[in-house]
Amino acid sequence: MEQFKIYSAGNFITTSQSLPVVNPYSGEQFANTWLAGKSELEQSISKALSVQEQMKNLPIFKRFEILRTISEGLTYNREEFAHLLCMESAKPLKYALSEIDRAAQTFLVAAEESKRLPGEILSIDWSPAGKGKEGFVKYFPLGLIAGIAPFNFPMNLAVHKIAPAIASGNCLILKPARSTPLSVLKLAQLIDKTELPKGALSILPMDRESGNQLVIDERFKMLTFTGSPEVGWKMKSIAGKKKVSLELGGNAGVIISDTADITKAVDKCLVGGYAYSGQVCIHVQRIFVNKKGFNTFSDEFSAKVASLRFGNPENIDTDISVMIDEENAKRVENWVNEAVNQGAKILTGGKRHGLYFEPTLITNTKPEMLVCSNEIFGPVVILNSYTTFEQAVEMLNNSRFGLQSGVFTNSLYEYNYAIQNIETGGIIINDAPSFRVDHMPYGGIRDSGLGREGLKYAIMEMMEPKLIVKNLI
Amino acid sequence: MEQFKIYSAGNFITTSQSLPVVNPYSGEQFANTWLAGKSELEQSISKALSVQEQMKNLPIFKRFEILRTISEGLTYNREEFAHLLCMESAKPLKYALSEIDRAAQTFLVAAEESKRLPGEILSIDWSPAGKGKEGFVKYFPLGLIAGIAPFNFPMNLAVHKIAPAIASGNCLILKPARSTPLSVLKLAQLIDKTELPKGALSILPMDRESGNQLVIDERFKMLTFTGSPEVGWKMKSIAGKKKVSLELGGNAGVIISDTADITKAVDKCLVGGYAYSGQVCIHVQRIFVNKKGFNTFSDEFSAKVASLRFGNPENIDTDISVMIDEENAKRVENWVNEAVNQGAKILTGGKRHGLYFEPTLITNTKPEMLVCSNEIFGPVVILNSYTTFEQAVEMLNNSRFGLQSGVFTNSLYEYNYAIQNIETGGIIINDAPSFRVDHMPYGGIRDSGLGREGLKYAIMEMMEPKLIVKNLI
Amino acid sequence: MEQFKIYSAGNFITTSQSLPVVNPYSGEQFANTWLAGKSELEQSISKALSVQEQMKNLPIFKRFEILRTISEGLTYNREEFAHLLCMESAKPLKYALSEIDRAAQTFLVAAEESKRLPGEILSIDWSPAGKGKEGFVKYFPLGLIAGIAPFNFPMNLAVHKIAPAIASGNCLILKPARSTPLSVLKLAQLIDKTELPKGALSILPMDRESGNQLVIDERFKMLTFTGSPEVGWKMKSIAGKKKVSLELGGNAGVIISDTADITKAVDKCLVGGYAYSGQVCIHVQRIFVNKKGFNTFSDEFSAKVASLRFGNPENIDTDISVMIDEENAKRVENWVNEAVNQGAKILTGGKRHGLYFEPTLITNTKPEMLVCSNEIFGPVVILNSYTTFEQAVEMLNNSRFGLQSGVFTNSLYEYNYAIQNIETGGIIINDAPSFRVDHMPYGGIRDSGLGREGLKYAIMEMMEPKLIVKNLI
Amino acid sequence: MEQFKIYSAGNFITTSQSLPVVNPYSGEQFANTWLAGKSELEQSISKALSVQEQMKNLPIFKRFEILRTISEGLTYNREEFAHLLCMESAKPLKYALSEIDRAAQTFLVAAEESKRLPGEILSIDWSPAGKGKEGFVKYFPLGLIAGIAPFNFPMNLAVHKIAPAIASGNCLILKPARSTPLSVLKLAQLIDKTELPKGALSILPMDRESGNQLVIDERFKMLTFTGSPEVGWKMKSIAGKKKVSLELGGNAGVIISDTADITKAVDKCLVGGYAYSGQVCIHVQRIFVNKKGFNTFSDEFSAKVASLRFGNPENIDTDISVMIDEENAKRVENWVNEAVNQGAKILTGGKRHGLYFEPTLITNTKPEMLVCSNEIFGPVVILNSYTTFEQAVEMLNNSRFGLQSGVFTNSLYEYNYAIQNIETGGIIINDAPSFRVDHMPYGGIRDSGLGREGLKYAIMEMMEPKLIVKNLI
Repeated sequence: MEQFKIYSAGNFITTSQSLPVVNPYSGEQFANTWLAGKSELEQSISKALSVQEQMKNLPIFKRFEILRTISEGLTYNREEFAHLLCMESAKPLKYALSEIDRAAQTFLVAAEESKRLPGEILSIDWSPAGKGKEGFVKYFPLGLIAGIAPFNFPMNLAVHKIAPAIASGNCLILKPARSTPLSVLKLAQLIDKTELPKGALSILPMDRESGNQLVIDERFKMLTFTGSPEVGWKMKSIAGKKKVSLELGGNAGVIISDTADITKAVDKCLVGGYAYSGQVCIHVQRIFVNKKGFNTFSDEFSAKVASLRFGNPENIDTDISVMIDEENAKRVENWVNEAVNQGAKILTGGKRHGLYFEPTLITNTKPEMLVCSNEIFGPVVILNSYTTFEQAVEMLNNSRFGLQSGVFTNSLYEYNYAIQNIETGGIIINDAPSFRVDHMPYGGIRDSGLGREGLKYAIMEMMEPKLIVKNLI
Repeated sequence: MEQFKIYSAGNFITTSQSLPVVNPYSGEQFANTWLAGKSELEQSISKALSVQEQMKNLPIFKRFEILRTISEGLTYNREEFAHLLCMESAKPLKYALSEIDRAAQTFLVAAEESKRLPGEILSIDWSPAGKGKEGFVKYFPLGLIAGIAPFNFPMNLAVHKIAPAIASGNCLILKPARSTPLSVLKLAQLIDKTELPKGALSILPMDRESGNQLVIDERFKMLTFTGSPEVGWKMKSIAGKKKVSLELGGNAGVIISDTADITKAVDKCLVGGYAYSGQVCIHVQRIFVNKKGFNTFSDEFSAKVASLRFGNPENIDTDISVMIDEENAKRVENWVNEAVNQGAKILTGGKRHGLYFEPTLITNTKPEMLVCSNEIFGPVVILNSYTTFEQAVEMLNNSRFGLQSGVFTNSLYEYNYAIQNIETGGIIINDAPSFRVDHMPYGGIRDSGLGREGLKYAIMEMMEPKLIVKNLI
Repeated sequence: MEQFKIYSAGNFITTSQSLPVVNPYSGEQFANTWLAGKSELEQSISKALSVQEQMKNLPIFKRFEILRTISEGLTYNREEFAHLLCMESAKPLKYALSEIDRAAQTFLVAAEESKRLPGEILSIDWSPAGKGKEGFVKYFPLGLIAGIAPFNFPMNLAVHKIAPAIASGNCLILKPARSTPLSVLKLAQLIDKTELPKGALSILPMDRESGNQLVIDERFKMLTFTGSPEVGWKMKSIAGKKKVSLELGGNAGVIISDTADITKAVDKCLVGGYAYSGQVCIHVQRIFVNKKGFNTFSDEFSAKVASLRFGNPENIDTDISVMIDEENAKRVENWVNEAVNQGAKILTGGKRHGLYFEPTLITNTKPEMLVCSNEIFGPVVILNSYTTFEQAVEMLNNSRFGLQSGVFTNSLYEYNYAIQNIETGGIIINDAPSFRVDHMPYGGIRDSGLGREGLKYAIMEMMEPKLIVKNLI
Repeated sequence: MEQFKIYSAGNFITTSQSLPVVNPYSGEQFANTWLAGKSELEQSISKALSVQEQMKNLPIFKRFEILRTISEGLTYNREEFAHLLCMESAKPLKYALSEIDRAAQTFLVAAEESKRLPGEILSIDWSPAGKGKEGFVKYFPLGLIAGIAPFNFPMNLAVHKIAPAIASGNCLILKPARSTPLSVLKLAQLIDKTELPKGALSILPMDRESGNQLVIDERFKMLTFTGSPEVGWKMKSIAGKKKVSLELGGNAGVIISDTADITKAVDKCLVGGYAYSGQVCIHVQRIFVNKKGFNTFSDEFSAKVASLRFGNPENIDTDISVMIDEENAKRVENWVNEAVNQGAKILTGGKRHGLYFEPTLITNTKPEMLVCSNEIFGPVVILNSYTTFEQAVEMLNNSRFGLQSGVFTNSLYEYNYAIQNIETGGIIINDAPSFRVDHMPYGGIRDSGLGREGLKYAIMEMMEPKLIVKNLI
């Protein structure tokens, strides 16, 4: 069985607590790694603090070279990385490959952005008090950062912590999800071969106590967390003085106008709704279709949902596989049952088979049902109709979340209305809300989070402005 | 009869050549000013060169105060300024008042932009050669500038030279049009009362020889010209090493889609087509209507054109008055006759009465007719239909000009297509191409000009970047 | 006795709890106002929520007009405002006048910045996944904001909440300090006369319970607090999901190099150290002088400190007057005594007379003494010498705070070293750390705060980015 | 003998006029290529016009891939490219290698910048006229561009035309220098293998008549020229309506303050003064040393100049080799003789041996001597002393050129004074004026040119802004 050492303070180590890693599809353990405890974490912190000055002063061409080298390494070994990711997460291979490609892109863009850290020049003499002075603003790294990554994109969402930290000259201690720590530990092996100062990055699966330390320890200047809303907001309240960035989930909605191209909308919503069993922060959960096109859309969509291919994630033709664990599959089952009991109607799917939940389409729901109001994080999509566009926007906004949304339309009026009135961090026009490329600003409002990722934006969150005022006289 | 001294090197002076100013509507001289000759120009140049350093070092709060004071002075005396402008140009009073308000806004925005002169910080160490270095860019005034302004917006187009010159710390010698020199000379009286260094600005009506000197003299570092394409491009070829900015004319087109609000389009095109008898660089000259809506548009538009009120420009109800001079009125008459002789059809108007040319609407034209292919600069609009939007864009682009254009549509597809494919400096969606506010970037491509005005943009054209690379080691 | 009604939900009202306002210099009550309780706060919140949409959609020219009108009103009534401020705070008149002028400038700059709310265009097709798409980012107001302002700049630090809130289209409920609520309530009278939607701004002195509600109520989307570190950081931990911006204090340090102009440094440090009895967040608390120039500096500085004129704050010649209350004066006395008991030496001053604490200069201190390590917020300055510049920077950085700092030097090496290594939010070269103009980014690192004020920066903190991705195909 | 076909309209072709290429060091022809005549040029133009639309619409990821592939190709074949460059230009191998590395970097940065083509969002409703409107600015490629490159950096200065043209979506026809066409024709072979649309780039050595056509043909929308001032300014006057960018030469000056590190200054000036025999636009031509340090500097510098190693450029140890041709070597000889005849004193060097001119240091010169006032473009440096820094700046500014300058100082006052008062496009603090990295803005004022290169800046010059105003109501 393969052993993956954890990466602490520049060394690959084992600890006293081993962590078996299970393939959710087969149900069998296929690898082993370790959990960091308090002492490993402490070592990682001390080492990171001691190289922080070196990181801050790393010349740009070095940062660039490090990041580009990692990017190229991922591309070169994409099959191998994708396979491992597939094994630990049950993510179908085609999506796993795409995740590795995106992670390579994330490092590449970070390499480029490291050259373009912002600065600003400003005149100071706007009033006589400023006479003879001019100012400028330079950005400096915050210091040591704690990162916590989720299971659903074990590689790329971790890379969205690692790459901007290196680009901005910060040290980072990253905690991957316990269920999916391997691909990112394999990444550590690539990173370790670059000229990144040893100890600038540690990657540590952790027990609960150590994980908590990441949140409360004041030596961390920032906590960047991707995960569930409940956990995220609680962390914020105990994080002390550090900056907190939260990338949480949502119940993304999409509007299909009567002016839209229905077939295109169906295809985009199909991928957006069921890729990786909907275990995606911006998974298409709620679809609102203009009543004129509702039946057409509903028929076409149901048929395509029903034809999704279930199977072994390692098979390149598999569209959908098992969920991450039984607990989650059961949770989804319960929510669907609650909806049906309260009057909702299943158009296709609806059943659980062990860890597998069928791709499911439901209609006749009410906003307060769990499948609507909460983040389902499973292969379930809700379909309802609307009469006016303004009403559709109101239905979409009727949520405690606000991450991304989609609008399919050819009306300039609806386009403008959507931009002005939809309350989500991102609005995707003529594509699903699940659209993301790695350089775009990404993040939610309301309960969906705090701050933005996307390289340039994540880098900015990891830096502190310093104003210099210079007297010329 | 009122006498307006010219403003040379910080003094109000007379010269040996007097310049009578005639009211085009009454045909009578109502005021007198003077032409600067070679010696007055030389004095203005020398004085300007001697205060250039002082201008460059003028603190921002001084620049701001000077510009804001002028803006407030214009607002305070708007009626008086508008009346004078009306007299010299035959511009209907309502448009004259609006021009003074805009000139006040132009100075106000310049005041604000003077605080925001740009700068840039850049890292230099992208390769080992740059190790230990960082850079920044500051912008400095170019030096002495020559400005030439046209008759059609005697105040605001001159102000678009004056205000950015002051904001950017440059000296300026401005030549107004011979027919309309008064409002801007009255403005000089306002400016002279501020703390602007004496001689930083001269305003000189000129004879041909001195005017030419503005173009060829190498002590000017920039020539900023607003006027006709023929004159402008010729100037560029003899301007030597100086920078040249040209704001020329066009034959602006507008597309009315079948998804548009027809009544709104009619109203916007009416003002865009006939305000100040079409003597406007971005006057609506060519309208392309989707054939589905052509008759509706044509009927509604013709009726409204026919009901425009002719009269004394000093009357607040007057919509249209005489043109600037008989030469131009006759030119328009000839072009219209040429079109009719070649098969075009007049829907309304078409006749000249002395300096007055009736508001005229023509259809059935061919692209090569003078009324289509050249800048008409008169109250004439061409109306034709199209079948597909792509064809409409092709018809609109079929011009040697490219200043501004308009598109009335509610189709997102057409909106995107227009942005990507219409070849003009500005595209106005759901308004006429004659739309302009003074802070927006304004200027044409092709034969319509070189460079952009609009305060921030004009200021940038008047400045030179200076890179500083600093070795930190 | 003058009565100042409080400003709740667009109305000037009284409540059941009156709040007497005392002149600290005379010790007598000279005015009366009221405390808002739970119900007044609730009314203000409800009203604000109901006008939030109107605020978001307020055209820019309206925001501009409102802000500029307030600015002009302050300038027009500056004497009256300064007098009132002087009475409630014991701030010497010359500083009170300057504060009103700055508040007028703060509103003016906010007016200008409202026109320049940022946006961003980005290409999305950096990878094949983004083909045919482009994106842009627009910024929208966060929603309802809670503002808490301190006593030491009762007007201008409140205006740094009010002006950016209006400029960014947000509603605000502001709590002024209990001791100094009057000048800002008088400002409310000015604001009420503008076209600002009624209820968009409430200004409410509050009892402790209501004040706490500002912090914990989730209907507020942001809390912007200026005040003491202890209170600020505690608020952050109970603020829930809302964004928190903290402008706290510090123990600002300044370095006087042997290459500096000593007389200039003395004069700047004198004002920076003793203006408003040091009750200033960026008051000069710690001076580090190169040992070569220490005696010269020390002699010149002591003499000037000793000659500061104590008196009635309403007298234009008064340099220093009483502190805000006896509690604070006694606190300063205790800290100074502690220092002396542990070996520090008083060069001048050191005694308390009721609310008046003499301008005091101390040397031979140790970093752990309260006068060094804590924010003194009183007329006390610490003077010590250093040997090398690197050591001076280390001494300056040896603090849990990091707001602003000053460096007097003519060495390019020291200039570069300072920028790279001093750890404060702002570094003022050749002026005191107490330098601030209102448009510059202002805020601290470490315990000194979170986020930046200064109009453009405060506005950014009050807005949320929204990404729009548009499919062009 | 190696044959290099020229690259016209996507094909490698020969023509009726062959062009022998001579190794200046050996004096022997070592390769052959061809001159394009009118018909080849015409074919290249037609083809380019026909693919312009395709170039404009090339997705960003394609542009990126093309540019990065070229960059990697150059790096992979650097030795081979450097050898060829060395042969055609007599550039010593170490400098030739560095030029290839820089060309690779130029392509890489262009790849990155293609992702970051600028755009702008602006509010339009600053006055009631703009109510309900918002605007944005997108940049579009200008169209067909003519590029003319010089002999002295046959690869990298050509790449500074090619790379930004591709990045910005423009087509380009490039004319290399007749004496050094080979390395860039070899580059064409690399480029041809990428997915760049065929015909988007042509590389054509030309006869005089065809070269002239590049300048006057109105189908070119821009002329970007790097070469001599005389030729450049003349081109501008006959270039018609097209945009003109000129990168010309200068007589770069450097100031050595008494606060400077002399040894460092000597080493930097040695490379800056004599690399590639001073045939560099920003070659160190005039050194001004504070009289306190003059003798030290002069002695140390003379000794190092005298020890430069002459030899075969293909030898890695060679510091200096022959000039490009005898004509230039004789010109330098004449200028030096003129200076000596008028009283200048040679400190070292001064003699010509065929195409080799000795590295030469002269003092006691007068500003009007040709070696001072003109661009020497040879291995000659002028050394003089100054008394005050202000005087040194005046001496440096006393030139009709203004490309780059250097200042060695440790005085903050001098640093500020230099930035504010030196009149050159770039100022290098504590390094020689010959410093350049490829992403920095580069270009001169006065007779030294028009516009800026450096990828981001060159790209901007090759694009045209388009304003879109959108009505939201």
